[in-house]
Amino acid sequence: MALDSLFAPETVAVIGASRSTEKIGHEVMANLRTFEGDVYPINPNSEGELFGREFHASVDDVDAEVDLALVCVPAPVTPDVLEECGEAGVGGALIYAGGFAEAGDNGEELQAAVTDVADKYDITLLGPNTSGYLVPEIGLYTHFVSEMDRVAPGDVAVVAQSGGVGTALAFQAISEQRGLSAMVGLGNRADVGFERLIEYFDQDDETNAIVLHLEGTDDARGLLETCESVDTPVAVYKVGKEDVNEFAASHTGALTGDHALYEGGFRQHGVVTAESTTELLDIGETLACAAESGGPNVGVVTAQAGPGIIAADRLQAASANLPSFADTTTETIHEILPGITFEGNPVDTGRPMPEFSDVVEAVAADENIDVVLVYQVYEPAVGFYGEALTSIPDQTGTPVLFATNGPEDEIREGLADLEAAGVPAFPSVERGADAAAAVVEYARRQAKLAQDGHDGGDY
Amino acid sequence: MALDSLFAPETVAVIGASRSTEKIGHEVMANLRTFEGDVYPINPNSEGELFGREFHASVDDVDAEVDLALVCVPAPVTPDVLEECGEAGVGGALIYAGGFAEAGDNGEELQAAVTDVADKYDITLLGPNTSGYLVPEIGLYTHFVSEMDRVAPGDVAVVAQSGGVGTALAFQAISEQRGLSAMVGLGNRADVGFERLIEYFDQDDETNAIVLHLEGTDDARGLLETCESVDTPVAVYKVGKEDVNEFAASHTGALTGDHALYEGGFRQHGVVTAESTTELLDIGETLACAAESGGPNVGVVTAQAGPGIIAADRLQAASANLPSFADTTTETIHEILPGITFEGNPVDTGRPMPEFSDVVEAVAADENIDVVLVYQVYEPAVGFYGEALTSIPDQTGTPVLFATNGPEDEIREGLADLEAAGVPAFPSVERGADAAAAVVEYARRQAKLAQDGHDGGDY
Repeated sequence: MALDSLFAPETVAVIGASRSTEKIGHEVMANLRTFEGDVYPINPNSEGELFGREFHASVDDVDAEVDLALVCVPAPVTPDVLEECGEAGVGGALIYAGGFAEAGDNGEELQAAVTDVADKYDITLLGPNTSGYLVPEIGLYTHFVSEMDRVAPGDVAVVAQSGGVGTALAFQAISEQRGLSAMVGLGNRADVGFERLIEYFDQDDETNAIVLHLEGTDDARGLLETCESVDTPVAVYKVGKEDVNEFAASHTGALTGDHALYEGGFRQHGVVTAESTTELLDIGETLACAAESGGPNVGVVTAQAGPGIIAADRLQAASANLPSFADTTTETIHEILPGITFEGNPVDTGRPMPEFSDVVEAVAADENIDVVLVYQVYEPAVGFYGEALTSIPDQTGTPVLFATNGPEDEIREGLADLEAAGVPAFPSVERGADAAAAVVEYARRQAKLAQDGHDGGDY
Repeated sequence: MALDSLFAPETVAVIGASRSTEKIGHEVMANLRTFEGDVYPINPNSEGELFGREFHASVDDVDAEVDLALVCVPAPVTPDVLEECGEAGVGGALIYAGGFAEAGDNGEELQAAVTDVADKYDITLLGPNTSGYLVPEIGLYTHFVSEMDRVAPGDVAVVAQSGGVGTALAFQAISEQRGLSAMVGLGNRADVGFERLIEYFDQDDETNAIVLHLEGTDDARGLLETCESVDTPVAVYKVGKEDVNEFAASHTGALTGDHALYEGGFRQHGVVTAESTTELLDIGETLACAAESGGPNVGVVTAQAGPGIIAADRLQAASANLPSFADTTTETIHEILPGITFEGNPVDTGRPMPEFSDVVEAVAADENIDVVLVYQVYEPAVGFYGEALTSIPDQTGTPVLFATNGPEDEIREGLADLEAAGVPAFPSVERGADAAAAVVEYARRQAKLAQDGHDGGDY
């Protein structure tokens, strides 16, 4: 596939590689230290080695076939540099520089020149005007911000229209100790845009959910239809409720369009929406393992009533159902905890206790329940019962989400372990409830799609 | 003041103090290790010392006058224990046990018995059915969850209807390295409720903002009028958009009431509202130093366009104004950064750079601007320009808020330092924008109040 030259290259050339630590060409070389393939720094004015790789004067001098060129030169010389790449048979190129379509008439001409060269040589182009991308699984960190190699491999692909927002999302993944299968900052989308990336990551074995940061696109219908056509769940954070067009156009050359039309489109085409960068990653992490829940019915188990009320309130406000449990479930809960505080849905166990996970298992096994949200305030003295939950999704076929509050430095590792074991985990009750609501909304929109498309949905 | 017996005691008795680490009476003793005053563990069945304090058989045996009794005994024996406290001249008592008004008829009788005793002896009562409170400034941690002594002194008072939510908020303060002047979990409010606490913390020199978690109260009008009457800014997180009454009543005996009526009341009475626990603390931290901004006009300075667009979009959706800058401001920005990316409001500097804080200062000095929101993605290679911002609020009289994204473990200390220096700081652009929107909303509601009350508001 053409996009393999970007996301599965074996040989990478860094054009404009530099010893000067101020330059992007240095930071990009530094971030490639973890890459498993061959790396060639290209600079006609440099000799010797950089990070143990020998400088070449031009991409044409490289003996091997170059899959990917990372173009770290200013906008005006980019068309010529890309021409050299084309002649050398390079398959894909990433252009970092700004000063193209986002920068007025001259920039638009320059961008047209770049796409002409890319077309002529069939080069797959990412950018211009972006900060790069990450494929942690193969150690490929083309991003010009350092420390991006702290993003671990995972199963969520992030596609951000803005490089800055992509960077923010990658840092958030680091903070939450969540892995990503990829993070791509699109920039001006002179060639590769949302649709091709969605289709590519849908085919990617490592990717189980795709999340998008979207400012605007000329072909909203094409984007929506692509989202609908793929099997992998897609979530989107659409910016531009208000009129921010002047600023947005100066950024990536795109207008933000009619927000209500986009919202309606996402609803119709089976895409769930997020209201923040934080929520976008939360939904990605959740859908990657809970998209198959298949229904709108949430069971809530809490060890503290106050946060449980918040969860129930927030879930209902988001149109989730909190159905009554089957009689057998209520009986089982009574057997486990004879003096239970509140035995409805939510179940309130009063405090965390060793039997906590047994209650969760009973709720997850209930035929009325499609997804379970568990909340427990972290209590240093009595411990953290999250660990006992990890076998429940496989045993019962019902996804389990976990939310807690505790000192960040004490709970973070535990939350990351839960997520690694297939239980999405959140450091506040609201984030957990919003993630469970997204699972419900995804199920509802997919069911509607199935009904509309095949006249056969069943709720 | 009567509440001083709770929040400024010199002598504390722990009734039901215990060597058994499973018991609340142990955890409470453990958490009092930092308390500056005298502590007396009370238990007729124990002798010797606990945490270096000598056991007494009853509160009557204590030679000193006891200001505060922390009552760690089960509900049924509480009235008798409180009677003993009254006879011994105890001024205030905290009752942890559940099994009172939230637990049906028998519980209601028990609660009536407790309040009768409190009335008879003029004991100021917190609870029953709560997890305690914290006054970090004097090392008083009465909360039964351990590690609460990690909450540092600060200038925000948290009053939570639910002990569990109060605990969650305290943990969040620890995670964000934010201090609190107090955190109080109310429980059943048999005696002390929201109004008296709001009035008390309004008079407290350490407190500059009061934030409430509210499920429901029988006297909504009284609460609203109290919020309006105090000088300290008040923010509230009202739970109960949806019908969660059955569960809520089982929790603290209170119904959640009509959400729209509450929302309207907050608007009329000058109270700003939060939509989550996270946002509640963010607003508290922000209003504590930025409540005097006085207007709805926000200036946004960003080092990255994508997050800047998110900030502008979110602020406008929350009805904040993003006015044009005065000509002199625009000229100054041009002098500082001749090739600037976007010079409107938001100002987009393109990347962080040493001149960044000069641009922020120019915007803060603009007569059209009431509050400044600054965003910068953390770039390990080029540093963090937040530190240079701390002198700007004093120099210009305009509050400055800072938002960023970066690896939690690298940025947390820097954010805490900024907050300590008077610049509220947030680890995502959305949280920063929401906090700035709350400053605007507070200014707007206060101006409306001034206008309605004195016919003299000026916008």
